[in-house]
Amino acid sequence: MSEGDSTMKIAVLGTGTVGQAVAGKLAELGHEVTVGTRDVESTLARTEPDGYGSPPYAVWARAHPAVGLASFAQAAAAAELVVNATAGGVAIEVLHAAGADNLAGKVLIDIANPLDHSQGMPPTLFVKDTDSLGERIQREFPGTRVVKTLNIVNANVMVNPRQVADGDHTMFVSGNDTEAKRAVTGLLESFGHTDVIDLGDISTARGTEMMLPIWVRLWDALGTPMFAFKIVR
Amino acid sequence: MSEGDSTMKIAVLGTGTVGQAVAGKLAELGHEVTVGTRDVESTLARTEPDGYGSPPYAVWARAHPAVGLASFAQAAAAAELVVNATAGGVAIEVLHAAGADNLAGKVLIDIANPLDHSQGMPPTLFVKDTDSLGERIQREFPGTRVVKTLNIVNANVMVNPRQVADGDHTMFVSGNDTEAKRAVTGLLESFGHTDVIDLGDISTARGTEMMLPIWVRLWDALGTPMFAFKIVR
Repeated sequence: MSEGDSTMKIAVLGTGTVGQAVAGKLAELGHEVTVGTRDVESTLARTEPDGYGSPPYAVWARAHPAVGLASFAQAAAAAELVVNATAGGVAIEVLHAAGADNLAGKVLIDIANPLDHSQGMPPTLFVKDTDSLGERIQREFPGTRVVKTLNIVNANVMVNPRQVADGDHTMFVSGNDTEAKRAVTGLLESFGHTDVIDLGDISTARGTEMMLPIWVRLWDALGTPMFAFKIVR
Repeated sequence: MSEGDSTMKIAVLGTGTVGQAVAGKLAELGHEVTVGTRDVESTLARTEPDGYGSPPYAVWARAHPAVGLASFAQAAAAAELVVNATAGGVAIEVLHAAGADNLAGKVLIDIANPLDHSQGMPPTLFVKDTDSLGERIQREFPGTRVVKTLNIVNANVMVNPRQVADGDHTMFVSGNDTEAKRAVTGLLESFGHTDVIDLGDISTARGTEMMLPIWVRLWDALGTPMFAFKIVR
């Protein structure tokens, strides 16, 4: 991925709400997008909405004919940039299925949150404070350039930030590779994000992952997930 | 504390940066303010700035002659409303020194954060995710009406919110008592806060206390503590 590339080959790992939103947006922007899944046949065979109410993948795919579907490994192997849009609890397992070799040297946009739903609502975090999912992924795949971002807003706001106050809010990037963060910032700006703050190295993902509890409570208090955080300064 | 009271007798527990800022602002607004401390003599005898660079209390007190100083218990006993402006690690001990009887039935504004500085910077949280300091205090003092607020910004921004973007940002209140949250919201508005969101019961303090890690990282990234969070919706 070099600056000046207008379009890229991108793998989006995960077929749920976030995967669909991000893959659809990237395709709309002209990128060559392949969604990665565990098993292509069973993904296409699903006829029920997922637990979050997203349509079955096959229904979504018919409306997005330009987006490919492949195994995690095939999608990652062919991609210049990879997006982790999985549930946090399976993220590392999925990335191993994608393959460390297929991820090596590439920018990995990590959107997953370490949510633990086992105790009901609100979810808790299975890693926090002294570590983060972003750091775990970076440690597990040291050859990959992990950039944590987008995890603090609803999937719609991730890819259509201008739907909330015409985009007058803030997004964060965390990662060890400055060039990778710059490339991801460009991608975020192409989505419509207007204020992207580079928080620092991947350990700063602790801060953004720990915003999930306030996000969940705000969703409840406001009665809508269509909100975002603006850092006013 | 009844609505329509223009001024109140308020105890501010804690002589540090937050205590000084809040006590000074409340006195400026015409409230009858007494700062509570462990030992009046030794507080007045201090000649060195504290660990955060605040002036010795005696220096600050000379500039704020209307503000009284008393023991935690005396300050709390005389007050209609109490502010916990202590360091999180000593909050419950200080509130016991103030006395459960002296706090009973009163609104307690809890600003403290459960910061653990024992591992150096950045601080971690000694309670989080499945519990919070606000909840601990409410459980320990069930007869007190605890409202968590102000803990997500710098002391200057707490009391002079209009110094950041003329106050165009958000403050949260968490607590089990709706009337208490309404009274505190009125006080926050008198400080200049323009958008106060009631997050719900005291367990929502988990969300705001867990914003400390992003706050600390933003302070580093932005190079200033003069920022605030706006919930854009």
